[in-house]
This record gives sequence, C-alpha cells and structure tokens, in this order.
Amino acid sequence: MRSIDLNADLGEGFGRWTLGADEALLDIVTSANVACGFHAGDPSTMHRICAAAVERSVAIGAQVGYRDLAGFGRRRIDYDPDDLRDDILYQIGALEAFSRVAGGRVGYVKPHGALYNTAAVDDVQAGAVVAALNAYGGNLPLLCQPGSVVARLATAAGLPVVAEGFADRGYQADGTLMPRSAAGAVLHEPDEVVARTVRMATDGEVETGTGQVVAVPVASICVHGDTAGAVQLAARVRAGLLAAGLLVEPFVRTRPSPAGSAGGGPDRRR
Amino acid sequence: MRSIDLNADLGEGFGRWTLGADEALLDIVTSANVACGFHAGDPSTMHRICAAAVERSVAIGAQVGYRDLAGFGRRRIDYDPDDLRDDILYQIGALEAFSRVAGGRVGYVKPHGALYNTAAVDDVQAGAVVAALNAYGGNLPLLCQPGSVVARLATAAGLPVVAEGFADRGYQADGTLMPRSAAGAVLHEPDEVVARTVRMATDGEVETGTGQVVAVPVASICVHGDTAGAVQLAARVRAGLLAAGLLVEPFVRTRPSPAGSAGGGPDRRR
Amino acid sequence: MRSIDLNADLGEGFGRWTLGADEALLDIVTSANVACGFHAGDPSTMHRICAAAVERSVAIGAQVGYRDLAGFGRRRIDYDPDDLRDDILYQIGALEAFSRVAGGRVGYVKPHGALYNTAAVDDVQAGAVVAALNAYGGNLPLLCQPGSVVARLATAAGLPVVAEGFADRGYQADGTLMPRSAAGAVLHEPDEVVARTVRMATDGEVETGTGQVVAVPVASICVHGDTAGAVQLAARVRAGLLAAGLLVEPFVRTRPSPAGSAGGGPDRRR
Amino acid sequence: MRSIDLNADLGEGFGRWTLGADEALLDIVTSANVACGFHAGDPSTMHRICAAAVERSVAIGAQVGYRDLAGFGRRRIDYDPDDLRDDILYQIGALEAFSRVAGGRVGYVKPHGALYNTAAVDDVQAGAVVAALNAYGGNLPLLCQPGSVVARLATAAGLPVVAEGFADRGYQADGTLMPRSAAGAVLHEPDEVVARTVRMATDGEVETGTGQVVAVPVASICVHGDTAGAVQLAARVRAGLLAAGLLVEPFVRTRPSPAGSAGGGPDRRR
Repeated sequence: MRSIDLNADLGEGFGRWTLGADEALLDIVTSANVACGFHAGDPSTMHRICAAAVERSVAIGAQVGYRDLAGFGRRRIDYDPDDLRDDILYQIGALEAFSRVAGGRVGYVKPHGALYNTAAVDDVQAGAVVAALNAYGGNLPLLCQPGSVVARLATAAGLPVVAEGFADRGYQADGTLMPRSAAGAVLHEPDEVVARTVRMATDGEVETGTGQVVAVPVASICVHGDTAGAVQLAARVRAGLLAAGLLVEPFVRTRPSPAGSAGGGPDRRR
Repeated sequence: MRSIDLNADLGEGFGRWTLGADEALLDIVTSANVACGFHAGDPSTMHRICAAAVERSVAIGAQVGYRDLAGFGRRRIDYDPDDLRDDILYQIGALEAFSRVAGGRVGYVKPHGALYNTAAVDDVQAGAVVAALNAYGGNLPLLCQPGSVVARLATAAGLPVVAEGFADRGYQADGTLMPRSAAGAVLHEPDEVVARTVRMATDGEVETGTGQVVAVPVASICVHGDTAGAVQLAARVRAGLLAAGLLVEPFVRTRPSPAGSAGGGPDRRR
Repeated sequence: MRSIDLNADLGEGFGRWTLGADEALLDIVTSANVACGFHAGDPSTMHRICAAAVERSVAIGAQVGYRDLAGFGRRRIDYDPDDLRDDILYQIGALEAFSRVAGGRVGYVKPHGALYNTAAVDDVQAGAVVAALNAYGGNLPLLCQPGSVVARLATAAGLPVVAEGFADRGYQADGTLMPRSAAGAVLHEPDEVVARTVRMATDGEVETGTGQVVAVPVASICVHGDTAGAVQLAARVRAGLLAAGLLVEPFVRTRPSPAGSAGGGPDRRR
Repeated sequence: MRSIDLNADLGEGFGRWTLGADEALLDIVTSANVACGFHAGDPSTMHRICAAAVERSVAIGAQVGYRDLAGFGRRRIDYDPDDLRDDILYQIGALEAFSRVAGGRVGYVKPHGALYNTAAVDDVQAGAVVAALNAYGGNLPLLCQPGSVVARLATAAGLPVVAEGFADRGYQADGTLMPRSAAGAVLHEPDEVVARTVRMATDGEVETGTGQVVAVPVASICVHGDTAGAVQLAARVRAGLLAAGLLVEPFVRTRPSPAGSAGGGPDRRR
C-alpha cells in the first residue's frame, strides 16, 4: 500500500497578526511546515503549533526563511552564504525547543518563499541550506522540489531528500512549475486538483498544460491554507487520496524514537 | 580545593556592530553568557562564539533577554508571562543549535539586563523564567543573584540554581547590590576588586560600604568586557583567584556527557 | 450647530498581515489614527491610507506607539524619556512624508496602546509625548482622554488638546473608563452605544454603571474597526450622530492651509 | 573660485552600538549622509546628528537604505518597486522631523550600500529611488555616481543630480570604480589620496590604474569615517582642498530659506 504525506505552511502569523487556518489544517495535513520567526511566526505561535502537531501525530518541519518580516520572506536577499547557513541553524534550533517541549522533534526542513525559489536554482544559497542541514546533523530530511539545485546538492551531501508536488499548480514539460503569471499556473477546480493529486501520489506523474505526461516522483503533496476555500480544497485532497487507497501519513516520525536522542536519526518510514 | 567559575556576557554585537572583546574574554572566563539575538547577538556571532567556547572548554550559557534590540534589553517590558516564557525558550533553542554544531550544549541560562533585574524582584517575570527552564528540561541551571525572587522560585521548582557575585560592585547589608547611582556602587581600583573577589570566592563574604561583612555564597563571579580596561581587570581577577589557590573552572560540563543526549542532565561538578 | 469628530485606528497591518477594515472605516470616520510603523503599520500601508484619507477629507493623525511589533505596542516599556520623545518624532515625521505626498498633512497625534495608557497616568512618559509635540512644532493637537496626565501636561505646555470619548465603553464616576475586566466595561448593544454617544457628543455627559451622570466634554468619539461587527457599529454611531442633528467633521483641517507651510498652524475649526 | 562639497556617512550606530567617529567627521565634512533607521541609525542618534549638523552649517542628507539592520543594508534585496519607494519616503520623512527640530531640513538624498550599488545599474530600483524623490517634492537633489542608471533617470525626471567622487578609490577607464577585489581598488597613501582629490575637484579628472585620464565631473567628494585612520585621512583631504584654493562648502543650504516652506526648493548654490 502506497503512502503519501500532505504538508502545509503553518504558524505564519506574527504577534497580533494571524494568517491562515492553522487549527483546521492540522486536522488535514500530516506534516506542518512551521514558520520559525524570521519571515513569520513568533515564539508563542510556534509553541502552540508544536503542541497541537504532536498531539495529532503531525510531523514538525522547520519552515526556514530569510530574515524579512516586512517582506514575508518573499523577496530574494543576496545573503553571504555563511550568514544564511547560520540564520537557518538558528531557526531550526528555536523550533527544536518548542518541538521538544511538546514531546516531539524537528523532523525535517523546508525553505520558505524566496529562499525556496532561490535555493532551487542558485548554487550559493542551495549550498548554504545544505551546509546548515549538514552542520545540524541528525540526518534531517530536506523537503523540496525534485530536480532542484538544492535537491541535487543535498543528495550529493548524503542528506535525505523528500520530493514534494503541488496539488494546485500547473507543471511544465521539464517537471518544473509554470510561472505564476502564465495562464493555468494555478488550478482552482476541486475535482481537477484532487484527480491530479491522486495521480501524482499513485503513479508519480502529472499532465502538463500542453497534454504531456511528465514524471514527478513525489513523497509529499503541498496544500495551502491562507486563501479563500483553501482548507476545503485541502480536505478534499486528503479525502481523495484516502478514497484512492493511499495511506496518508508523515514521511518522518513525529516523536523521537525511544532509544534515540534529540539529534538521533529521523527514522524515515519510506 | 575550592573551585570558582568566572562568567561574562559575550557575543553582544549585532551584524555590522561589535561590542566588547569576545576573543580576549574567552581566554579568561570559564562560562560564556552568549547573547541569543533578542537584545543583542546574531546567528553568525553565536556560531563563532560557541565554537570558540567549546574549543577552550568554556561553558555556554544562554543569555536570554527581552525582544528589544533598540533598547539592548535594558528597558523593562511588561510581558505577558506566557509570551516571556516562549521568548526565552526560543532563545535557548536557537543557541542550542550552535552549541550542538560546535560539539557542546547549552549548559545554563542567565537572564540579561532588565529581565535579570525584573526577575530578581517580580514574581510574574521570575515565574516565566522558571517556567521556561522547567519546560525546556534537562535540569538546566539558572545563574542568578542569591536571594532574588527568581532564585527562590527556581529552587522551589527543583531547578539547580547557581549564585553569582560581582567582582566590581558595592554591596548592601542585605546582600543586594548598591544602586548604580550611589557612591561606591562600581569599584575601579584593581587591587581592591581582586581582593574582594578572592574573599567572596574563598570565604563567601563581602564587606559593604559601611564596613559590615555579609554572606554571599557564590559559585560564579561575573566580570565585564565592554568597558575600557575591562579585559585587563578580568584577567587580574582570574590571576588573583588562581594565586589564592582556587580552581577556576565552569560549574557545568561544556560538552554533553558521552552517554547523555542533548537534553541530558547538566552534570554539575560542584 | 454642534460638531463632533469620529476617530478610529487605521493601517494597523504590517507587510503580509492585514488587520481591520481600513477602507470601510475611512467612509465612516472623520479622523484616521494612522499606525506609523513601530507597533504596526508599514510604509506602503501608510502611503495608501494617507491617499485614501485625503481623498475623503478625513484628517490624518499620527498614531504613535512603542517600538514593539511583536507586542503590538500593548506592553508597557520603560523608555528613557528622550528616547521615547525621539521615537515619537520619528514616527510623526515618517507619516508626514506620506501625508504630504497625498496633498495633506499630519493633523494631530494620538498615542497608541500601552503608550496611551501609560501617558494617561505617568508623568515621565506623558512628558515625553509633550516634549515630542513641542519639538515638532506646528501647534499639533494631542488627541487623548480628558483628565489624563498627558492632557494636563500638554495643556500646561500650551498645546491644543482634543478630548475623546469612547462609544462602547463603560465609565466610572471620576470620568475614567471602567477596567476591561469589570462587568459592563465594554458595551455591545448597538442602540445603547448610539444613544450614549449622542448624549456624550450633544450634552457632554455619560451615565456610569451605577447610574451617576458625569461630565465628559469630548470633541471626538473613538470607534473600533478590528472586531466582528465593529464597522457596522461605527456606521450606526455615525448615523445616530447625524440623525441627532450633529455635524460630523474633523477637528483639524485635512489639507495644509493655502498660505501655510507644512509646519504651519493646524487651524482648528472649533 | 571653485567650490566642492565633502560628504560622509554618519549616524550609523543603532541603540547601544556605535560606529564611526560622528563628532570628529562633522567638523570636517560639509554634508552629512545621515542613516535613517532602516540599515542603521536610531531616532536619538538622528536627533543628535541633525542638531550637531545644523550647528555647524553641515547639510543634512537622507542616507536611505534597505530595511535590513542585520545586513547593514549591504545585501541586495529584490524589492517590489512601490515598496522600495515607500520605504525611502518613510526614511526621508523621519529624518525631516529631526532636521526640522534642529532648525534645518533634509537637503538631499543619498542611497546607502546595496541600494546605492543596485540603483546604479538596475532600472527598477533606480526608478523607485526617482519615484520617491518625485513624490516627496521640494526638488531634492540626489547624490550619486555620475553615469549611473539612477543619475540618468533622475536627470530625465527633472530632478537635480549631484555627482560624487571617491577620494580613496581606484577608477576604471569608463569612469566607474574598480571592483573592491582588484589590486589598487582602495588607496591608502594619504598624499596620493589628497592629490587625486584635488585634481578631481579642480579639473574634474582622475587617473586610472593604467594611466589613462578620465573625466569625473564631481561636485562632492565622499570620505569615510568607520575605518582606522579614516578621520585623519578625511581631515587631510579637506586641508588639501583648501590649500589648493577650493571653497569647501555644502551643495545645498542647510537651513530652509526664510520665505520658503519645508517643501521649498533646495536653492542649490552651484
């Protein structure tokens, strides 16, 4: 029986400001990409999300971003790579504290926003992400797009890489996403989104806008929570995957293994 | 043979801005109170200080502060206690990442500036500090003033408390420091500072401005690094303690014990 | 014909995060307390709000707050008074730029959150607010609670003071607000809120929870925009005031007077 | 008699952290590029520098930068151009408040760090700088490198542009600076620096590393203050210019003209 993970960005408020439907999504997804305070997220929100995630056996991932609250981490910043590595380590460590308080651990890392996009194509920033994971240790998996520069560098460094696909995005023939400006870049029709997701999860393939079938061997599907109707769509995606006979579960253990330390191996299930 | 710890605030720059003589102090002190990014300190500085500390077997402490870079954590902020607890947990976690990368661990916690002063007298903020330590686990010692509210609450909660004294400060009859505005509040004459420190470390007592001898049972002496002549004074204090036959060493192990995890007991030496 | 001003806090989002119904409120109020970036508000939001306010002849006020995005300016901070004065001047100046770009000017100042509350009772922080207004010049009015310390100090300094009342809050016999924790502190029944507001604006009096009638000689009524039903309530308050024959208009001119400079007198209407 | 301006970056500390020799430089330069709080600079420092500048008839310029305290504004950020324009407007307005309190005004704008470099070559960010100046009004001059993209766009928009040269930098045949990585990019020999500066100010030309003479028609010379020996070098540059018979004076009036408003024309002298 095939299994698939569902991930979403969570805890992206800051102080007085909230964003997205954290509680509702935690009942749908199996992995929570928790914002760590640099592009969004504050300590109390991190604390709350980690507790709620562990309670539901949802895996906790460090959604690391640029230090840019005003830009929500969506503006590329030309970091010195050592500084970027250290900003990432700092965020992972901060989230680890709350994971640990909740009885869990940071199970994986997923870059956010402009860092995600830059690390997908830029050797320097991809290298900084990999350097952070290497330095942190514990064989922490990187959740990212298959075929990206950061996926390639992480694999070369011996790190576990978990490939993710997007439930509601159009793909190009080379397996990359259509630019948001293109027609068909974002899909809104629920039945279509569900069908594509099931196919992606089951057969590892997706149909492009021009009708080609391309391989997307993904182990996790990213759903969104901060737009109108997003939670409903995420719930339908989950229901569709279950109805298709897939096991919907995290790709890492939520809690530390009994014998292991906080830095122990992530004990990937698949 | 009695032993005594020497602690100092380190890593209190931020980005382009530096403060104090971190490298020089690391060769003098046995415990480094590392700023964690809220009142001062940035990830790259934390990384560098942790590596240098572990290299020298200097213990790493989380110097946790208010979220107030502009005020350097020196302005009292009326935090909600849960938010304060979470801000402290966040900072400990972030520093733990760099300690771990360096092959060490966070060995203790020392509040900074206005948080230090407020937790010494205010039940609410003292309670938040203790709640953070309790939640973090690992039996992490709190470095603070003997007789303070936070010392009392931490002891009541079963946490290890390490009492510190100040090499260059005048004391009052009740064992508290003279207010900085009072004459004799800060001592500058090196011989006097050294003699008082040795007495404090050896006999656990200090003479007040009015000639009374009061008990100050301290296990660590705080020295400063950000003023003119501070490093020289700190070096003389260390030399004076050694000359008096004291063992100058950290009160916690710098590295995790072989069998223990990052969250393991701090293994206090004394 | 009596006139009354309606003010509300606006522009309290930050970057990706929004808060309240800015556009809807701008069609209801006559004075906009625009957040200036320290407790909330970002430059692009300030730009947008100023343009929309000038377009509607809504007066622009600097809603100045503590430097505390994480706490939304709601936590008291023990500022050095000179630093507080300068933080306030900075915020007024920043808002002035956008007011000027929009063809208007900063017409008044209203402290936000914990600064509002602290300046109402604390001589030091009230003095810092008054020092900022004095230094800025232009005879800028201060919008605050009648009887507060800051109102008294501003009046003593020769600054124009505009008294505000609260549409939906219970009052005590001394003319101050009931603490939020008390029963009856916040009123929700629209008819009651409207009736009280009309009485306050018309006769300058309000009935306390115990049935006493106290004088509240207000020139502006504060309405809220960030809670459920708030916009509807604000609209009803406005309609009620108009139905009672009051002129609902700003207490300062929105645009600079033709002959005056940006620093010119505010030309109060009443 | 030819005149020349000397400009330097000032007020680049933040809170507890200081940088450079502000006081000493204010006695040497004729124009102060004052950091406005986004890459460096805090309100109290801005207040102090503006007062000291007006006292010495030193012109006040807004040294506007990216919102990046951690990176000191030295990392390129891919801003949305409207957000960049608004961040610049905000900073100019904030500085205007302190200039006004000091009896002066913001006399010009000079981008800082990565914004300076990016606006020199990038149409989008150069356009945002020009849009900010246009929106702010008052015919505020832009201090920048001759031949840069932002100089071209500002000129095309009808804004006054003031060209600056660098006392201690090597030039290339096309009039641009040698990259810092190249040998000869930074000159340290005081006599050589002074001689080059005098030639630049007197004849508008400079010799490249390969011996070519290129035209650099500058009206201002930039000196530095944050490195060892920088103040001494700046003082020698000033003395050299005076000895060569040049008038060393600001290119804009420091104080508002008697009849003009804060938004009045800058009244350029040359």
